[in-house]
Amino acid sequence: MSSLPASVMRQEEAAAQEDADTQLMYKIERPVYDEAFIQSQLLHRKENSTTLRQRLAQRFRCSAKAAVLSFLPILTWLPAYPVKQYLFSDVVSGLSTGVVQLPQGLAYAMLAAVPPVYGLYSSFYPVLLYTFFGTSRHISIGTFAVISLMIGGVAVREAPDSMFFMLPANGSNMSAILDVEARDARRVQVAVMLTTMVGIIQIVLGLLRFGFVAIYLTEPLVRGFTTAAAVHVVVSQLKYLLGVKTQRFSGPLSAIYSVKAVLSDITSTNITTLILGLVCLVFLYVIKDLNERFKKKLPIPIPGEIIVVIVSTGVSFGLSLSDNYKVDVVGNIPTGLLPPSAPQFSLLPNLVTDSFTIAIVGFSMGISLAKTFALKHNYSVDGNQELIALGLCNFISSFFQTFAITCSMSRSLVQESTGGKTQIAGLLASLVVLLVVVAIGFVFQPLPQTALAAIIMVNLLGMFKQFRDMPTLWRTSKIELAIWLVAFIASVLLGLDYGLLVAVTFAILTVIYRTQSPKSAVLGYVPGTGLYCDVDEYEEAAECEGIKIFHSNSSIYFANSDLYVNALKEKTGVNPEHLQATRKARRKQREKANGSQKSPLKIRVDDKKQGVTHEVLSYNHTAEEQRNGQLEDRHSESDSEEVVFFEPLSPVHSIILDWTPATFIDSVGAKAIKQVIKEYAAVDVRVVIAGCSRGLLSELDTLQFFSGFMTTEMMFPTVHDAVLHCQHSQPARCQNQ
Amino acid sequence: MSSLPASVMRQEEAAAQEDADTQLMYKIERPVYDEAFIQSQLLHRKENSTTLRQRLAQRFRCSAKAAVLSFLPILTWLPAYPVKQYLFSDVVSGLSTGVVQLPQGLAYAMLAAVPPVYGLYSSFYPVLLYTFFGTSRHISIGTFAVISLMIGGVAVREAPDSMFFMLPANGSNMSAILDVEARDARRVQVAVMLTTMVGIIQIVLGLLRFGFVAIYLTEPLVRGFTTAAAVHVVVSQLKYLLGVKTQRFSGPLSAIYSVKAVLSDITSTNITTLILGLVCLVFLYVIKDLNERFKKKLPIPIPGEIIVVIVSTGVSFGLSLSDNYKVDVVGNIPTGLLPPSAPQFSLLPNLVTDSFTIAIVGFSMGISLAKTFALKHNYSVDGNQELIALGLCNFISSFFQTFAITCSMSRSLVQESTGGKTQIAGLLASLVVLLVVVAIGFVFQPLPQTALAAIIMVNLLGMFKQFRDMPTLWRTSKIELAIWLVAFIASVLLGLDYGLLVAVTFAILTVIYRTQSPKSAVLGYVPGTGLYCDVDEYEEAAECEGIKIFHSNSSIYFANSDLYVNALKEKTGVNPEHLQATRKARRKQREKANGSQKSPLKIRVDDKKQGVTHEVLSYNHTAEEQRNGQLEDRHSESDSEEVVFFEPLSPVHSIILDWTPATFIDSVGAKAIKQVIKEYAAVDVRVVIAGCSRGLLSELDTLQFFSGFMTTEMMFPTVHDAVLHCQHSQPARCQNQ
Repeated sequence: MSSLPASVMRQEEAAAQEDADTQLMYKIERPVYDEAFIQSQLLHRKENSTTLRQRLAQRFRCSAKAAVLSFLPILTWLPAYPVKQYLFSDVVSGLSTGVVQLPQGLAYAMLAAVPPVYGLYSSFYPVLLYTFFGTSRHISIGTFAVISLMIGGVAVREAPDSMFFMLPANGSNMSAILDVEARDARRVQVAVMLTTMVGIIQIVLGLLRFGFVAIYLTEPLVRGFTTAAAVHVVVSQLKYLLGVKTQRFSGPLSAIYSVKAVLSDITSTNITTLILGLVCLVFLYVIKDLNERFKKKLPIPIPGEIIVVIVSTGVSFGLSLSDNYKVDVVGNIPTGLLPPSAPQFSLLPNLVTDSFTIAIVGFSMGISLAKTFALKHNYSVDGNQELIALGLCNFISSFFQTFAITCSMSRSLVQESTGGKTQIAGLLASLVVLLVVVAIGFVFQPLPQTALAAIIMVNLLGMFKQFRDMPTLWRTSKIELAIWLVAFIASVLLGLDYGLLVAVTFAILTVIYRTQSPKSAVLGYVPGTGLYCDVDEYEEAAECEGIKIFHSNSSIYFANSDLYVNALKEKTGVNPEHLQATRKARRKQREKANGSQKSPLKIRVDDKKQGVTHEVLSYNHTAEEQRNGQLEDRHSESDSEEVVFFEPLSPVHSIILDWTPATFIDSVGAKAIKQVIKEYAAVDVRVVIAGCSRGLLSELDTLQFFSGFMTTEMMFPTVHDAVLHCQHSQPARCQNQ
Repeated sequence: MSSLPASVMRQEEAAAQEDADTQLMYKIERPVYDEAFIQSQLLHRKENSTTLRQRLAQRFRCSAKAAVLSFLPILTWLPAYPVKQYLFSDVVSGLSTGVVQLPQGLAYAMLAAVPPVYGLYSSFYPVLLYTFFGTSRHISIGTFAVISLMIGGVAVREAPDSMFFMLPANGSNMSAILDVEARDARRVQVAVMLTTMVGIIQIVLGLLRFGFVAIYLTEPLVRGFTTAAAVHVVVSQLKYLLGVKTQRFSGPLSAIYSVKAVLSDITSTNITTLILGLVCLVFLYVIKDLNERFKKKLPIPIPGEIIVVIVSTGVSFGLSLSDNYKVDVVGNIPTGLLPPSAPQFSLLPNLVTDSFTIAIVGFSMGISLAKTFALKHNYSVDGNQELIALGLCNFISSFFQTFAITCSMSRSLVQESTGGKTQIAGLLASLVVLLVVVAIGFVFQPLPQTALAAIIMVNLLGMFKQFRDMPTLWRTSKIELAIWLVAFIASVLLGLDYGLLVAVTFAILTVIYRTQSPKSAVLGYVPGTGLYCDVDEYEEAAECEGIKIFHSNSSIYFANSDLYVNALKEKTGVNPEHLQATRKARRKQREKANGSQKSPLKIRVDDKKQGVTHEVLSYNHTAEEQRNGQLEDRHSESDSEEVVFFEPLSPVHSIILDWTPATFIDSVGAKAIKQVIKEYAAVDVRVVIAGCSRGLLSELDTLQFFSGFMTTEMMFPTVHDAVLHCQHSQPARCQNQ
């Protein structure tokens, strides 16, 4: 098969090509080891006998001071705040971010299905609080499209339009009127309660050090999910852009219903609204493009969004768009803040699942952005403290009527790129919002909704760019493409909550799939190297005569032990059942020759040994016993036969299982391996195991794998040890028998 | 740390102890390889260019004849049936099994909540059909306690008592009467429709070659599940044993409700019923014990069940127990078979989920028993054909009003131990049942229900023995114990269907848990062996100076890449962030010394480079670019600094990642590794990777891992290669810089 001399020659050539002084030699000369020998030689270190109490003590040794500092990071960084160096940058950055917070707050409130002013509240309280609790210096906390949309979905589900139709006071045959005020009040209650719950969940997860849950949201999943969210957002904003009045949908297939509703009402499009919206859209897009193109030359990015808000408010007010052209405007924005009030806990039971989803999505968005900035600026963020900080922001703020927040990519980039150094920038941004809320909020009352829809849509362009992931993933990893697509399609069709659940389940199943459908190969020796490669793939790899080396890149456990055994029999081409059949055929020949009637009688006796034993599922033990019994039979049979038939049943005398990639094994796997070793033993093929890690060895020990004729002498530290052993001991074994 | 000479000595001693002629040497001397070299040397075999068409052709080449033979296995074995040799055994075995089928059929019909005669039907049709389609020669198809109970649960849920109360004809203030006939008719319809659906699902799964789904039912799971089923069965039979009349419950917590209902009615216990039941129970237990104890001496097991049925029927008839003592009896058993009729498809929508559960549980019970017997008697069963066979049995039979069946352990053991050789035995057993149904079924009408309850309970004793698994599993595998307990508790509390779902989900999650919480270790060299062991565990393992070898027994993917990186930093004690901090501190010292203002200015410029880029989740790309940019900065910084500070930041100059146990990697894992390598590079610690399998290498290639400064020259086939390379090239590298 393989040309040994050629390979050696090529090696030597290559060696000659290398610099003489870098010619480093790999040289090992030692006896062949098996695990029994290794275990007898290696000394186990005494275990560090830390008792539970000691470990607990160690854990809680951190003083109260450290706990407070980690809970209130502001106490760490504020006293050391280098005013001269940082304050100017922070002020510039804070003002710039505040100017973006404002229009985004108004716009995302629309997504959350609550009146715009609540978006302003949500852009103030949590941002202020994060200054005290947060560990990331650059992220901009506040309203975020995906989270707002999820809240909006729940609010609409819990307070649908249909609940708030009231008969007009003057009675009878007029159609019912939608009580918008009552509906919005209810939706605010729902959003606020949801936010409280999100906060509580985040705090609890943080205290339990469960920050790691975000790892299940793998990148392709998050990107598929957020792309789907962008689709939902655009769909939900279509009606504002067109000025069409349709109801808002939530739940599975809501995106399709929404599009259908808008299309069926497309004739009632308000042309003024549409034109205004498109102008804003184009303007914002151009500004975004300019900002990106000249980001090195501009001292601060052009605040396109606030320009759109101010200009369109001015136009709307000047031309009285709302009255003259029926353009929908933001409407009533009360001045000042609301006094704190407790959320409506009666709403809680329907919101628990949603809260979990929002809490986890919110956190995972925040932490990934925070980590990115931390890496860039060489500081570290504490995942669990971030979780607690977000939770506190949500929880405390919710008493002041805010909806759930996390950090937004676009704002965070503004904050960071305009020179923000610390959380002080965020603090100033929140103060900008506060100023508007308490002083000039009413100014924005004539702001057309279509302008806000344009702001939301342009902010989502980045997310749509994620469609470009698909060809990339196609090239790099089909499985990850599948995760992306499942996340995207499920989230678009089933809604964000169920979509996320489906996507996470799918992502977890792909891991199972990977461990369960391993690649297997028969290895061959690359002469002179101590290395073994797939014989189907490499020409140099030569199989050793009479030895099959079976490699499968997976652990062995319940879901793949059957597949492992099947692959072993198929790849090596040594099937104990076939060999048994061969033996039977030979025996028959012998019987014919001898005219003996021994065998059938023997079988009768064997069968009678078994009686009715205990019912149904004790059968595994029974089966084990039966197998053992049967195996002994086989052995005695084969012994007696060996005398008659000297020629071996198979040209392969040894099979080596390469367990280098195996990391764990369970009882089902161990039983399957033991079983297959016995099956091979019955047809005189020896099976040994190589490359078993020390951890796996001790697992096998606990599983009582080494009992009966399974010994650690069948285990070898490397494949090469096993091959040498098999090559050497094979003739000896044959002679003995 | 470790005593090299001592270790070497021990080796030599051991070597001396071995026989001189078995002293096998492991000897390798070759240049140190890296993957770049290996890839340049090894020749890839040309791929076998089998096109899709060729493969399809290959697949369908098997002729129509082979297909028919595999579909109707009887055509294979019946023509070759050795009448003289096998027929007598098969007749004895068939009659013995038939005698057990009969009482079990009657008893399990009670579990399935249908009149007893349907149990007889279910013990005839499917058994007959299996003769034609089945590949296992020893299992006894028919009614089975767990499946019957699951059917009963569904039947009761879909046709609860409460649906069938009718007001007495004579009107007004009497309490409503339960219309037992209508209820039972409905329950039969439900059971039959369920059976049709189970059959269809099994056939479809079999045709799709989905026989492997049973692998998810790992052994501890099945044993926990069946133990729970036994608990449910006993609970459901309590009322018959006591003669108490309570309603039957289904769904979550039904076991608790049932026990509560029986206890609250305990005062109405029928003493005659109880005594009769206890006598049967004790008698059956003693017979079971005798059968087990003397199974070698008894030619066929004592048929305790049929004795109980006959005697108790006789007693009941003779003493008119039903009339005189109000003992509940079996009641009407119509003689003869029913004409075929189509199932009620209108019931289907509520039954789909249940059908799936029952189909899979039924199949997995059957296949595991069939495999056990096949192994014992050296023939093979075809999992997919078994699935089709079971499906056909269920599907066709359901038109004759049967409920779902699979094979039962107790009957199969009777069939096999009484000498059954082929499916002929099953055929005869079904004929025994047929005889009773068409001729003498009415004889069993006075049979007391309590006797049947006793039969069911005694048959379940074996399942309760499975509680003994718990201490065994505690010793061998905590994870499997957890699976057992979850399966048991969930199935007892939530009912068998939800319980199974929870258990399977849990079992799958344990695999995730195992891959996600790997053990990691720092390895050290065992001198002279080429082997590397955990330094914390073995005294001989010595760390090489300046080199840390990090080993983690898991693949690297989204759910554990963070943990991997954290473990790496913690275990090796080399944390790039801390080293960066050290560097900063040193730089500050230098600045103080120089009075220079360069650094802050430089940072300002860096920051301004970044602008507002596209919105939210394009951040991964952006982040990547930023990191790259930043990394170059760091590099240039470090270069400039290197001039000033010659002393290295860390005593460790190289880290070797041992990827021997890694079997797959995804893009998240690859990014994390690339990132951490860059982080280390920034603090002048080189990271190389060892033991990467060829499959993993090509996966890394597709993921574009080898780009920028990542090359295959950083990859080594073994840890020892990597160590030698790092030891050799380290001083050179230092001089170069």
